[in-house]
Amino acid sequence: MNNQMKGELNILKYNGDELLETIDIAAIEFPLTIYVDDEEFATIVCSPTNINILVIGFLASEGLIRSVDQISSIEIDENRGFAYVHLKIKQSINKEFFSKRMIGSCCGKSRQFYFYNDANTAKTIMSRHSISINECFSLMKLLQESSIDFQLTGGVHNAALCTNDTILFNFSDIGRHNALDKLYGQILQHNVPIKDKVVAFSGRISSEVILKISKIGVGILISKSAPTTLGIELANDLGITVIGFVRKDKLNIYSHPERVIEANHLPLIDFKT
Amino acid sequence: MNNQMKGELNILKYNGDELLETIDIAAIEFPLTIYVDDEEFATIVCSPTNINILVIGFLASEGLIRSVDQISSIEIDENRGFAYVHLKIKQSINKEFFSKRMIGSCCGKSRQFYFYNDANTAKTIMSRHSISINECFSLMKLLQESSIDFQLTGGVHNAALCTNDTILFNFSDIGRHNALDKLYGQILQHNVPIKDKVVAFSGRISSEVILKISKIGVGILISKSAPTTLGIELANDLGITVIGFVRKDKLNIYSHPERVIEANHLPLIDFKT
Repeated sequence: MNNQMKGELNILKYNGDELLETIDIAAIEFPLTIYVDDEEFATIVCSPTNINILVIGFLASEGLIRSVDQISSIEIDENRGFAYVHLKIKQSINKEFFSKRMIGSCCGKSRQFYFYNDANTAKTIMSRHSISINECFSLMKLLQESSIDFQLTGGVHNAALCTNDTILFNFSDIGRHNALDKLYGQILQHNVPIKDKVVAFSGRISSEVILKISKIGVGILISKSAPTTLGIELANDLGITVIGFVRKDKLNIYSHPERVIEANHLPLIDFKT
Repeated sequence: MNNQMKGELNILKYNGDELLETIDIAAIEFPLTIYVDDEEFATIVCSPTNINILVIGFLASEGLIRSVDQISSIEIDENRGFAYVHLKIKQSINKEFFSKRMIGSCCGKSRQFYFYNDANTAKTIMSRHSISINECFSLMKLLQESSIDFQLTGGVHNAALCTNDTILFNFSDIGRHNALDKLYGQILQHNVPIKDKVVAFSGRISSEVILKISKIGVGILISKSAPTTLGIELANDLGITVIGFVRKDKLNIYSHPERVIEANHLPLIDFKT
């Protein structure tokens, strides 16, 4: 595991028989405060790796930027946990806006956005890229093999951008949202085409996860974990194929099965909850 | 499982052999916006159970109240996901304050608070209550037996207030912070004495979890999950005994072993990271 992600702790371990003093490895949590144009924007708690792209991905997720071209500079103070971002065109940041509850017609029967910001930045995925069930199993196996971190500390999530048969980038973080933001930052930083890609993920598929996948622009999400009902409602609305509980030789398709090769000939079922 | 916590989803399940249309059960995510004295204070995403005490616990965690006496009314609009709180003595809510990064001497060698609010509300635990290793195992077994929800949906956390041999209250939520806030709300609502109590928890022991335990005022936290290094630094500073990775007949004592009966005769070890 990356040294910036783990720390050592002196502990007393009870092994079923006696108490022994030993050293344990635990995930590091790092508070990072992001300033935008000299104004405090947010404090997040993260694993202190790939901080630069985490900041880029976070600002894009929050709807503050759409491409790295809009950033004139990012300075990271790793010792104190601060990131100073300057944008090319200063915008007055109405912080209220980013967490303001959306009330109105959009909260009714149609899209289940609850923040104004998401309604502005989440997009419907039109990609026709598809994947086979066996490819899902082998990608999830690759993700788990490349994620020894989690087994060591029991507390790190992974988000990877994949083709149908290999992992292109894989980011770890104690926060599952941060892992996705690092992935988003990397994609923006390198202008990676995403229409023919898949995201493999270790964490629960919540509404926030689906909103991030939609902003990233990928049409297929596979995860070893379970979704929430609101996550799947959003995935249905936003055109995202969600394949969850991918474990050994079993999986569940929760939304938009037309992108799964073995399912696309099946009669359409009503995926709405 | 409580009906308000789960929803049904139509899915396609691949069972290792064929794709079958079936119904799956998933955790419900519910956006809840809390207004305090007619001002929007925060939106959280939670399981829609025990909303009233969740609101109380959340406001106490955020440092807005210290007891239920300070609240003059709480109205919950369950259909739309809004809570309207009125305080007896209106305070001007400086929202910035609640998430403002603390900079200064406190961020150095001493306490690792990163928000001003926490520095004001977290307290050092002086309780001399103690627990045996076997009591830890049996409490964690009770927690798991009473938490079938998690096994069903793969996505719910539990936080329980316990005596050394039984569970008094157990709250579930898709968010581990919400589960602790529900517990806090219940304790405040019923004025439960907490000096001789233990919190049993399903989730990772992060800095935020330790801060909540400190605000609740309980001296012993047991969890089946792992801690982070910052969580344990804070637990050392705040006088909280953290016992993690409680699984079958094994566990780790991460901080303040003097409250564990089998460990309190051992020579003091340096628990600092």
